[in-house]
Amino acid sequence: MRVRNRKGSAEYIENNPQFVVSNPKEYKGRWHEKFGNDNPIHIEVGSGKGAFVTGMAALNPDINYIGIDMQLSVLSYALDKVIEAELPNVQLLHVDGSDLTDYFADEEIDLLYLNFSDPWPKTRHEKRRLTYKSFLKTFEQILVDKGEIHFKTDNRGLFEYSLASMSQYGMIIKQVWLDLHATDFPDNVMTEYEEKFSSKGQVIYRVEAQYK
Amino acid sequence: MRVRNRKGSAEYIENNPQFVVSNPKEYKGRWHEKFGNDNPIHIEVGSGKGAFVTGMAALNPDINYIGIDMQLSVLSYALDKVIEAELPNVQLLHVDGSDLTDYFADEEIDLLYLNFSDPWPKTRHEKRRLTYKSFLKTFEQILVDKGEIHFKTDNRGLFEYSLASMSQYGMIIKQVWLDLHATDFPDNVMTEYEEKFSSKGQVIYRVEAQYK
Repeated sequence: MRVRNRKGSAEYIENNPQFVVSNPKEYKGRWHEKFGNDNPIHIEVGSGKGAFVTGMAALNPDINYIGIDMQLSVLSYALDKVIEAELPNVQLLHVDGSDLTDYFADEEIDLLYLNFSDPWPKTRHEKRRLTYKSFLKTFEQILVDKGEIHFKTDNRGLFEYSLASMSQYGMIIKQVWLDLHATDFPDNVMTEYEEKFSSKGQVIYRVEAQYK
Repeated sequence: MRVRNRKGSAEYIENNPQFVVSNPKEYKGRWHEKFGNDNPIHIEVGSGKGAFVTGMAALNPDINYIGIDMQLSVLSYALDKVIEAELPNVQLLHVDGSDLTDYFADEEIDLLYLNFSDPWPKTRHEKRRLTYKSFLKTFEQILVDKGEIHFKTDNRGLFEYSLASMSQYGMIIKQVWLDLHATDFPDNVMTEYEEKFSSKGQVIYRVEAQYK
């Protein structure tokens, strides 16, 4: 997600270390300690303005959520929501998705969400797509055995690519939705992007894929 | 595909044994002999009125095609096309898709097509869907090592089901098309059904899946 630069984002984030940890490497292998419980930890890579991660946290108080985004301005909008929601089970992380093994120990994460990731449609940018094999390898390392990725997008090309990429990596396609909003899917928490585009009649795709 | 009963279909088919073999079990393991060459053999399970199998045969003279359908009236329309096209590389087979190992030896078939198969939308009819695991097992037996299924449909539910079913069976999703007619796909041979529904703006799905 690209948004206009928001002035003062860096200071705003620095001033809220209780929600956006300023020293994330120190928590590698210690996230349960940070949350103060042994509940499962779910992460969203590319959490954007935070509607999904805060919505899920409100709906599932017994799960810990970490929203990860590398863009400061975007993350600052997510911080607005986290502060407003006053939820004890959400943290934000200002890091790059390709370095996740620096911040999470092996098998520390129970479930990984990708929502409306950047499609990078040009073939020469394939390696930047979050469902490219190098990312799938990183995700596999930090996820529990038989961990899952739940992925939503409105981008047909990225979804076509991702199904094949995940399958070729060795993941199992557990379930697929080719028009999520035409299906009975209880408790679908929408991202900002999803609200906007599904209201325009855009089809939303979803997949649950599992590592072997 | 369901069509109205066509009078005289049985006699018509019986009178054309050069195109619809009357003793298919005798050709198990001997289809190359029947075609008189060692070219690859591709089959379409549920070949309906035959536009696909005859279209493909005309386009690819170095491949042998066998169209399989269990409905006499439907098969009789395919026979019209085979007779008219005068192609040496097409045969029709009036048998049930679940019994294919009676008619084909292990690894006798190089590629299997499923086009617009009956969706059997009710959960209690899952076992009748041609991408149910028992069919996938039968297909695996008659296909070459690392053989492929190429599957097209306009039915969203069947396509969602099939991606998951094939992946869970252990097949690799090699490539997916979520709107075939919006994509540059050279030499797409359309079935009768596909022509009708794609012209109404219906999305056509396609997948190429491979056995391990």
